Amino acid sequence: MILRDPVHGLVSFESDEERIIERLVDTPEVQRLRRIRQLGVTSFAFPGAEHTRFSHAVGATFVMKLLLARLRQIELELPLSQRVTDESARDALAAALLHDVGHGPLSHLFEDAIADGVRHETWTERIVSDSSTGVNAVLASYDSNMPSRVTDLVHGRHPLPFLAKAVSGAFDVDRCDYLLRDAHATGVRYGNYDLDWLLRSLRFAPTSRSEAPSLAIDGAKGLPAIEAFMLARLFMFQQVYLHKATRSAEWMIRTILRYASTLIAQGNVLPGVPPAIDCASRGKEVPLVDYLELDDHVLWSMLHAWEAHSDRALADLCARVRRRALFKTIELFGEWAAEEGRQKGLRCAREIAISRGFDADLYVGLDLATVTPFSDEDDEPLMVVYQKGPARPLYEVSFLLGRLRDQLLTRARLVVTPEIREEVVRALGL
Amino acid sequence: MILRDPVHGLVSFESDEERIIERLVDTPEVQRLRRIRQLGVTSFAFPGAEHTRFSHAVGATFVMKLLLARLRQIELELPLSQRVTDESARDALAAALLHDVGHGPLSHLFEDAIADGVRHETWTERIVSDSSTGVNAVLASYDSNMPSRVTDLVHGRHPLPFLAKAVSGAFDVDRCDYLLRDAHATGVRYGNYDLDWLLRSLRFAPTSRSEAPSLAIDGAKGLPAIEAFMLARLFMFQQVYLHKATRSAEWMIRTILRYASTLIAQGNVLPGVPPAIDCASRGKEVPLVDYLELDDHVLWSMLHAWEAHSDRALADLCARVRRRALFKTIELFGEWAAEEGRQKGLRCAREIAISRGFDADLYVGLDLATVTPFSDEDDEPLMVVYQKGPARPLYEVSFLLGRLRDQLLTRARLVVTPEIREEVVRALGL
Amino acid sequence: MILRDPVHGLVSFESDEERIIERLVDTPEVQRLRRIRQLGVTSFAFPGAEHTRFSHAVGATFVMKLLLARLRQIELELPLSQRVTDESARDALAAALLHDVGHGPLSHLFEDAIADGVRHETWTERIVSDSSTGVNAVLASYDSNMPSRVTDLVHGRHPLPFLAKAVSGAFDVDRCDYLLRDAHATGVRYGNYDLDWLLRSLRFAPTSRSEAPSLAIDGAKGLPAIEAFMLARLFMFQQVYLHKATRSAEWMIRTILRYASTLIAQGNVLPGVPPAIDCASRGKEVPLVDYLELDDHVLWSMLHAWEAHSDRALADLCARVRRRALFKTIELFGEWAAEEGRQKGLRCAREIAISRGFDADLYVGLDLATVTPFSDEDDEPLMVVYQKGPARPLYEVSFLLGRLRDQLLTRARLVVTPEIREEVVRALGL
Amino acid sequence: MILRDPVHGLVSFESDEERIIERLVDTPEVQRLRRIRQLGVTSFAFPGAEHTRFSHAVGATFVMKLLLARLRQIELELPLSQRVTDESARDALAAALLHDVGHGPLSHLFEDAIADGVRHETWTERIVSDSSTGVNAVLASYDSNMPSRVTDLVHGRHPLPFLAKAVSGAFDVDRCDYLLRDAHATGVRYGNYDLDWLLRSLRFAPTSRSEAPSLAIDGAKGLPAIEAFMLARLFMFQQVYLHKATRSAEWMIRTILRYASTLIAQGNVLPGVPPAIDCASRGKEVPLVDYLELDDHVLWSMLHAWEAHSDRALADLCARVRRRALFKTIELFGEWAAEEGRQKGLRCAREIAISRGFDADLYVGLDLATVTPFSDEDDEPLMVVYQKGPARPLYEVSFLLGRLRDQLLTRARLVVTPEIREEVVRALGL
Repeated sequence: MILRDPVHGLVSFESDEERIIERLVDTPEVQRLRRIRQLGVTSFAFPGAEHTRFSHAVGATFVMKLLLARLRQIELELPLSQRVTDESARDALAAALLHDVGHGPLSHLFEDAIADGVRHETWTERIVSDSSTGVNAVLASYDSNMPSRVTDLVHGRHPLPFLAKAVSGAFDVDRCDYLLRDAHATGVRYGNYDLDWLLRSLRFAPTSRSEAPSLAIDGAKGLPAIEAFMLARLFMFQQVYLHKATRSAEWMIRTILRYASTLIAQGNVLPGVPPAIDCASRGKEVPLVDYLELDDHVLWSMLHAWEAHSDRALADLCARVRRRALFKTIELFGEWAAEEGRQKGLRCAREIAISRGFDADLYVGLDLATVTPFSDEDDEPLMVVYQKGPARPLYEVSFLLGRLRDQLLTRARLVVTPEIREEVVRALGL
Repeated sequence: MILRDPVHGLVSFESDEERIIERLVDTPEVQRLRRIRQLGVTSFAFPGAEHTRFSHAVGATFVMKLLLARLRQIELELPLSQRVTDESARDALAAALLHDVGHGPLSHLFEDAIADGVRHETWTERIVSDSSTGVNAVLASYDSNMPSRVTDLVHGRHPLPFLAKAVSGAFDVDRCDYLLRDAHATGVRYGNYDLDWLLRSLRFAPTSRSEAPSLAIDGAKGLPAIEAFMLARLFMFQQVYLHKATRSAEWMIRTILRYASTLIAQGNVLPGVPPAIDCASRGKEVPLVDYLELDDHVLWSMLHAWEAHSDRALADLCARVRRRALFKTIELFGEWAAEEGRQKGLRCAREIAISRGFDADLYVGLDLATVTPFSDEDDEPLMVVYQKGPARPLYEVSFLLGRLRDQLLTRARLVVTPEIREEVVRALGL
Repeated sequence: MILRDPVHGLVSFESDEERIIERLVDTPEVQRLRRIRQLGVTSFAFPGAEHTRFSHAVGATFVMKLLLARLRQIELELPLSQRVTDESARDALAAALLHDVGHGPLSHLFEDAIADGVRHETWTERIVSDSSTGVNAVLASYDSNMPSRVTDLVHGRHPLPFLAKAVSGAFDVDRCDYLLRDAHATGVRYGNYDLDWLLRSLRFAPTSRSEAPSLAIDGAKGLPAIEAFMLARLFMFQQVYLHKATRSAEWMIRTILRYASTLIAQGNVLPGVPPAIDCASRGKEVPLVDYLELDDHVLWSMLHAWEAHSDRALADLCARVRRRALFKTIELFGEWAAEEGRQKGLRCAREIAISRGFDADLYVGLDLATVTPFSDEDDEPLMVVYQKGPARPLYEVSFLLGRLRDQLLTRARLVVTPEIREEVVRALGL
Repeated sequence: MILRDPVHGLVSFESDEERIIERLVDTPEVQRLRRIRQLGVTSFAFPGAEHTRFSHAVGATFVMKLLLARLRQIELELPLSQRVTDESARDALAAALLHDVGHGPLSHLFEDAIADGVRHETWTERIVSDSSTGVNAVLASYDSNMPSRVTDLVHGRHPLPFLAKAVSGAFDVDRCDYLLRDAHATGVRYGNYDLDWLLRSLRFAPTSRSEAPSLAIDGAKGLPAIEAFMLARLFMFQQVYLHKATRSAEWMIRTILRYASTLIAQGNVLPGVPPAIDCASRGKEVPLVDYLELDDHVLWSMLHAWEAHSDRALADLCARVRRRALFKTIELFGEWAAEEGRQKGLRCAREIAISRGFDADLYVGLDLATVTPFSDEDDEPLMVVYQKGPARPLYEVSFLLGRLRDQLLTRARLVVTPEIREEVVRALGL
């Protein structure tokens, strides 16, 4: 299997242990990822952001291939039992490809709005474990335990902890790929960092005999590289992931889905509703086979169908979002951004909406985004090693990352229908 | 209006004459282009090729902005009547944005397979001219003649011929953008050329007083730039546009659409068929409002719905193409590539298909692609000028392009269901 | 004037006010910059870093052209007296080109080691002001006051303070160009930032009537852009400018020059010494005409000639540096990095050198580098403006830059001849 | 050994067989290449073109590393005796690094103008073979036959012909690197091609048992890649290597060197003449040790010194070239470009020069450049293979390269001092 990737250039999976990738790629479950865009509705703000979860999954697998090559360069210092075997390499490649195979359409909107309680990680596990899927068949054809090993890896569990963290951690192949890919597709330059150099900077941290080895950064070579990697994530949040147009569109779609879900639960018949959404709306468990029918096409066609529905609010919201007539955002700063201020602002906006004849639940909202671009995962910070001296936590070695550590990035915004924007701004004195 | 574009970087339309772009972009007809991928099903072969006609339309408009800036640098030598006015600049920008606004979903498949006789250029004209559209309303708000002037430009007609050719010609803003954009998205490097340098190499060819001025390339500065531009197109055809996986998927979808169209015409009821396709299948004229409801989501959802149809061939083909279980291609070389050989090969493949129980019309085909990467448009070749001496045709000045001129690029392939591939190859001795 | 630049692409200076650039470029003083590498001996560590001060000077001028275009977009809000005139635009372009025209060879080594007290800024002023130079002749041909206006600009003085700061400030065209250029040439990716976006983010800060207007960053659009710009400088210091091999080579050359200077002052005759160095070594003022004969070729040829000198230490050091047999650096951390520790380390290294028969002044040294990647210039921080509310200092708005502000980056290293490296490391227990 | 390269990114030589590279890099002969620019005086036309033969040598070695990795993927089909051994891999890497170690300063000017008959290839052989050099010592430390094996490889001789051709052939590591590097440094985009894809397209051509295997291109995957590679060379010739300013500067320097050489041969004493040039000018053989002292610094310092010489023509020419006051070129087209026309033009220009008091031998010349961008080396064309059918020559498979094959690219120009340019142009009616 060999293909051209706009991010990594020539991508090939040709060795014995890599051959599984082509077989997995050919399963319907992985092909479904072609129909789900990586960044949901972000292309409303960045027209280039049309790349799919499929290309990201392949990219992450390629980064895993590069990482395995580096591990094999440096593992000679480890006892045999702690080295990467052919089997664990194949597991890791498969896990990299499948890490998000359970993702729903339109980014996280589906699971936020409808599939309460069932997160995409759970769906990933089901797809890997359920004997009805193509993915499971391929994995099990190698070894009946492979599906469960891959599931473990996706959840960050493996006898070699460094391999588990490479699938799911603060510095994992998922992030390595999506930062570069999202930057390439959006045209934002701040997500770039030097992947080759970063991989080359990996070493094993010295450990006592009983401890499991863990990957660390060579401080002499790689400090700016890992700093740039971590800052890239901050920049992408600031610039792309929390962009006001994206957030507004997401709020609208989530609101539509929740509202429609309520209508369905009440017994209304909506056109174009796929079984999975019907099911979930009625509080029933969604069968895997139905879940796998969901993709961006299905959801957009559903929203399209609802434009003609007799519920005028539903039809209106669908028409607006599909033609990108997005709600306006009003950024809340200072006191307005605190809990009390936010609620006061929301109340005020709702009152104005109602006075103008809008359903306040559907036409006004508060969008609160909070992320922590850099923090330690589970009390185990990424370590930095030097030729001499003990390993030290990255946040201690880098004064920039020390500052960024556990820093909460918050964006509080009122989301309001354009018709009342001016009035809300005036009323709040913003 | 200011946005980030992965190809051109910072794209802005802020001057008086550019302000119309933001208003046009906000119309439902232009927003529809967000839901139509530029390269149809090419992402089956190049996973990155998910970019939309929307981003291309904006990009082409930006190239027009750059071109207008160059024209204003060099037009001082022209009589006033032949210079670009504010009005013609605005017309040209609008035409660049709208040049493909009538495009159907899935590249050219829709118009090839169903909408017999009505090409996307015609739909573009209707969208611009019909008073029911948002696009028409914006244009007419400037000047009641603007819609017809923009239509003329899109068709390559304008009092300033060089402006008409910039919208539609061998070196137009459409190509300027799509070569770069397709290269960026696919990761293929051969579509790159130096846009800035090429624009800077533009001059007016000296003309007699009565003649209209035409743009030419400054041979001393720009010959390699224009050669690289023309070769980029050749390379993109060889590498991307005629890729076997893409062509196979296109053949399958075209076959599905034609077959379904026949079923509909025969009175069968298929699920998920949008009014436009129903209409066209029955040989009726498609109303504009229905045409505008078509996009990639609608077509993929329709194919999805057909997977459950009782016509087993239809269901099977839809399921195959959606999960990328594509038909195989068998490249025809030498004698097999000539008309007689092709038909003989096709007959042979059909017989094998039938003997294996397949409907030969649906499971076997001949895919013949012919393109002319470089030729003169309408007897008026692109000219090259030097400080001294007469203007000379580009194909004469460049020995590479002289060789490429009117060269027909042909790919003849049998497209067959995988089950019979081996047998066909053996039977033909290929 | 039109040329290709690997950083900015097509660079042209063709308008009336830009025409001066071609004439200035053709002067011998600007041409001299072709013979002085921008990063001195950095190519010992990064083989690609061979770019010259000439290409940087042209690049900085091009950034000034872009900046002037942005100023003209936004200055309409200013009173006429505070807008950029044709004259001040030409002055600014000339100043951008000439800002470092007085630079000596081998980065700052010449002025550090020999030309005590006379810094390159002074030479720049002389070159601009002295009627014997080509530069002065060109400037004076426009206006007899132009040389002094350009000198003022280079020193950061101008009736329009924002123009002065654009030539010399925390965000000036010099930095804008060198960060990109140094990153391009070295292959280090961290010096990249989005120049177009940053320029587009510039606005005038609101000021009271009596105050001079100053440029500010539009916080809503440009915060990540300016953060990336400032961090780029930090990364380049960490990765490139303070690289141990570069610093070692610089220390060696500085030591050679100082030693040779002493020898000359004592009346020794060294071969290949250009008049300027002879002069400076004897404590006499260096005539401008002699200074202008200095370039990298002259200095390297001089070091080459000294390889054959009878002073064995001088010959040895020259031979080593020219064949890149560099001294080793020993990084001082923790207590060793404090003043007391450094001196103790140096004493220890010197004793070992002496015991091994080396001249400790020439074969051992302490290299202390301290830089402040981000600080306010002269109490006037770069301001950030939002649609509402007062302008706020950048360091307050950006928590990353708040952390970086006035942060001192320090590298303390012993520089020792390789023969004693091991022994010194052991003795210090490092 | 690990370094950052602006073209290839992370460059490392760390395996056993690669370790020799670091030792060779540390020799004075390889370090000398840091002081010789790859493209001579091309930076007069493209300010970025300051990259050195050193960075190119390292880059070519890196391409060899990539090529060896590909060879090891595909050589399993070969008999053991025809596979790459550890020894031949090390030889090939060394040969790639050393392929131009004998190059003189200022591109080919030195060997053209002074060292009659002794080409840089000969110097390379001497450096590798002579026991006095560092390079020879390193090679011989591995194996006493290694120097001669490396010499053979540099000359294109090796028991594995495909390895010999990889060092010196139509598609060798030298070209692979310089096309990319020259494009990167000049900013010209046409030298780019897809190295990774091209290497991946390499296969062994099927051969009869007795024949040596040879590398071929996989036509299905790699045709556009190899076409782009070959065209890149054409574009670089058109755009960069034959640029009029470069050719003028080269003509001037060659003229200066020849003239000075004559003066020296006549017994005149010129300042700053290095022993090698003195020697060669008097017709004596140049000792290796003297040759190795030559570099760009030495030659530019020599030209600098001659600016003060009493021979006014010599001084004048040196001053002009150093301050880039270059002679003008007059392009000869049509009849003027044929042998007769060229001589007539030259005579005319000489007469005008004489009539204006110039020494016609020094101030007027004819510069005739002829290159063949694509031709077969030694009757063995690069072959293209398909899954079926015989291997076919590249020029046959590619209609573009068929056209380009053996095509002679000619530029005929008069080179004249600017004072007479107008008069010559008028006289010739050009």
